[in-house]
Amino acid sequence: MKTVTSRDNPLVKRLHALSASTSQQRRADFVLAEGIHLAGSFLDAGGVPRQCVISESALDDVETRQVLERIASERIVMLPDALFKQVSTVVSGVGLLLLLDRETPPVPPTIEHDCVILDGLQDAGNVGSILRSAAAAGVRDVFCATGTAYAWSSKVLRSGMGAHWHLRIHEHVEAVDLLARLRVPLALTDSHGAQAIDATDLSGPLAWIFGNEGGGVSSAWREVDHLRVTIPQPGGMESLNVAAAAAICLFEQGRQRRAARR
Amino acid sequence: MKTVTSRDNPLVKRLHALSASTSQQRRADFVLAEGIHLAGSFLDAGGVPRQCVISESALDDVETRQVLERIASERIVMLPDALFKQVSTVVSGVGLLLLLDRETPPVPPTIEHDCVILDGLQDAGNVGSILRSAAAAGVRDVFCATGTAYAWSSKVLRSGMGAHWHLRIHEHVEAVDLLARLRVPLALTDSHGAQAIDATDLSGPLAWIFGNEGGGVSSAWREVDHLRVTIPQPGGMESLNVAAAAAICLFEQGRQRRAARR
Repeated sequence: MKTVTSRDNPLVKRLHALSASTSQQRRADFVLAEGIHLAGSFLDAGGVPRQCVISESALDDVETRQVLERIASERIVMLPDALFKQVSTVVSGVGLLLLLDRETPPVPPTIEHDCVILDGLQDAGNVGSILRSAAAAGVRDVFCATGTAYAWSSKVLRSGMGAHWHLRIHEHVEAVDLLARLRVPLALTDSHGAQAIDATDLSGPLAWIFGNEGGGVSSAWREVDHLRVTIPQPGGMESLNVAAAAAICLFEQGRQRRAARR
Repeated sequence: MKTVTSRDNPLVKRLHALSASTSQQRRADFVLAEGIHLAGSFLDAGGVPRQCVISESALDDVETRQVLERIASERIVMLPDALFKQVSTVVSGVGLLLLLDRETPPVPPTIEHDCVILDGLQDAGNVGSILRSAAAAGVRDVFCATGTAYAWSSKVLRSGMGAHWHLRIHEHVEAVDLLARLRVPLALTDSHGAQAIDATDLSGPLAWIFGNEGGGVSSAWREVDHLRVTIPQPGGMESLNVAAAAAICLFEQGRQRRAARR
């Protein structure tokens, strides 16, 4: 383990610049994953961090020490608490941060299985929540259309709670390119005039697309044939949060498949 | 319509103090609802704002003018843009803010219908999303246990997207008091060893309880008899976001009821 105490250290300067800015994070070739849970789930998934940065007082924490035992000591850097605070992406964390290589999986030439497409979602919490729901449902590929919040930002990583390690996340996806590769129907929710989701056959593979919080799915995707389903809302509210709607779609698809196997 | 240009004006000072601080908002007897959608849905639901504050340039916006036409002009206060910015609760809004009386509905002596209980949720986005899902499902009463994020904060209002106007939201609820009033089973999700939610009869009224993002439902609620259901997660991820789980529970309950009526 190495100790760094200067704020002029190149690693500290780099982390400091990144921690405050999602757009800087987007330009970097690695990602910041902060917190015990995120670090533990990364290691559980077989990941090897490029570097692990901890605060001095984090060493007092049993859970942190358990995580550190799983990382080669030459990759661990300790900072005084005050310095760690300057590079931290959270307000009151335990003081453990991993630097990871960002994965950029190749886009499959054809897509013949379930997948999720995010089209212009802006809220990091929504993106993280959908990634969790997708991973829970057994989806492997998530495609983020250009204009979607950066999926590897520290905020999305935090709300994803480790889902990232179970998915292939593709960014900067263009509709025309992805649609040419899709061999499964595109499915989206629509609150007006579509068939109820639980009265629609979802047993085959689908590409679920979820759109921007305000504007929904953009026209580039709507121009091709697609399956439209409505989530019944007996209370009469006009719409659900997009991540809530995504959870329902993925759950209902799984439910129908379980029911068919019975 | 009145114009205020001084930052020493009592209304401006009050708004300025409130806009920056959720804890100040919690102590106030009124709430700040900012944005066109929130204002429109409030008026649609028959609400009468105490006051409406707009920025000068908001008058250029057609949608804003349509909202203003629905509010008695003596209740409208216009601020120069720079001053409005100081009292705004959002980064880049259209410049329209309503001051509303906070409703504190009486807790029913007995609860014999569907309801939702929030136990210690901390994330405003999660609280708002669950309020939307509850309103969409036709739930009327939401009980927020002491320790839950303030349901009328401007952040929760924003993510609730108008759900607040369709619900009776009860705050500072204590488990022992609410449990004494409950005449319907308490239901919660549990990822370990419970029955699959779609294999559980949810046709009767239920009190769904959703717990803290990290710690789940606290022991005060778990000590009484309750229904435990698991949301199947074929992908093997350990847990869903709490608002995603809530959406699935409320949807699945509605689905079973629709199926029973067919």
